[in-house]
Amino acid sequence: MGHDKQETSLYYIVKNSISEKIQSGIYKVGDKLPTEMELCTEYNVSRTTVRIALDQLALEGRIEKVQGRGTFVSKPKIVQSLSSAWKGFSNQILEQGYKPRTEILDLRVIPADGALAKKLQLKENDPVNRLVRMRFANEDPLQYETSYVPWHFAPGLINDEEDCRSSLFKLLQTKYNIKIYKTVEAIEPVLADKKISEDLKITKGTPIFSLQTLTYNNEQIPIEYSEAVFRGDRSKFTIERFYDSK
Amino acid sequence: MGHDKQETSLYYIVKNSISEKIQSGIYKVGDKLPTEMELCTEYNVSRTTVRIALDQLALEGRIEKVQGRGTFVSKPKIVQSLSSAWKGFSNQILEQGYKPRTEILDLRVIPADGALAKKLQLKENDPVNRLVRMRFANEDPLQYETSYVPWHFAPGLINDEEDCRSSLFKLLQTKYNIKIYKTVEAIEPVLADKKISEDLKITKGTPIFSLQTLTYNNEQIPIEYSEAVFRGDRSKFTIERFYDSK
Repeated sequence: MGHDKQETSLYYIVKNSISEKIQSGIYKVGDKLPTEMELCTEYNVSRTTVRIALDQLALEGRIEKVQGRGTFVSKPKIVQSLSSAWKGFSNQILEQGYKPRTEILDLRVIPADGALAKKLQLKENDPVNRLVRMRFANEDPLQYETSYVPWHFAPGLINDEEDCRSSLFKLLQTKYNIKIYKTVEAIEPVLADKKISEDLKITKGTPIFSLQTLTYNNEQIPIEYSEAVFRGDRSKFTIERFYDSK
Repeated sequence: MGHDKQETSLYYIVKNSISEKIQSGIYKVGDKLPTEMELCTEYNVSRTTVRIALDQLALEGRIEKVQGRGTFVSKPKIVQSLSSAWKGFSNQILEQGYKPRTEILDLRVIPADGALAKKLQLKENDPVNRLVRMRFANEDPLQYETSYVPWHFAPGLINDEEDCRSSLFKLLQTKYNIKIYKTVEAIEPVLADKKISEDLKITKGTPIFSLQTLTYNNEQIPIEYSEAVFRGDRSKFTIERFYDSK
């Protein structure tokens, strides 16, 4: 009968159809979706199929289930541009009508372990400033970021807590006179494990972004390494690339 | 007792420690990791804690469990650059010592549905070429991609199956005389659902990338829309950004 195969394609059709209705604006932000029973009738599928489709959409952040009230279309994802023109976190969030906020969770000097020393071209146990920050959009935790700056590049950083709340790059450029030349970022999709899900207040297993960034000065020496996790259900990245059209 | 909290941080420490040993080259590609029992002794934690750490590492593609033989360090992820200098899939794969291959799964003309018509600035039911391709690195499926090109931009595309196996962009530029100006890409982390896990031959629930691309010609008209999913456990994206250092 190929029941399993058929079930797959059915839930996929239902999921895509609802997703397209959201994208094209037939279902708008905040709209209540039809009930599970109504969707069963509309698509002529079983309740299980409807549930799988809705669960997937919820995990991807497109819809939200509210206990006892129904299922609603989520706000669009917060877009963060990865294109060359760089605007800090706060500006990007502001432009989309959200209120940005940054919380400093920790700021201290630690000895570099082997892996960190290698990344920052230091010797093991060299002193490194470690800054842990949580970024919020409208009070929702969006991004959890740990930054490492070698002590000798920013010797008084642990006293700059207030300035670290806005832009670390601006602080490094102005106060510590560092010439930032480029960043190299690596993006990977990962699952929120228990620690991350607690930090970002999301369900364990939610797909998230992991972003690792190495920042170099104009002498090609790494001056910062950072690891960040982003809520994938609430944010997406965009990139604009230009071509030589012959 | 806060057992749950403690368990969280313990597995996290073990996971990070193994991950760092892989990164710093203490454990090399193909190396066999110590057994679960040995890891229990080394970190002085329970077998459950070790298992959670290993399961996470496996799901993220850092290690592989081989039935009856043990746990091994995986090959590094295949890196695909998202920076402005654009090199096709094949070149990027080749540079990393893998053999690239592209399979055409489907090539046909379909009527645009509402969402697709909106994206490509067409009328609903306008004809669109749909090309479905699977990309392989060393015979491992890496990327599943569906591309849509409005019929009027490439009227004979369905007869160009052979050329679609290499670069669609090159074909559009040379044969159909399209001036490609820019792409706008959006990346999101999602979970492999049943359909995707079957397509890419991965475990359901593996974190993957979803990449949507709109390509514009030099008159700012969209000439292609594509949706691709990438194995997140086998690939990562990098971006290089340059700064004005004042």
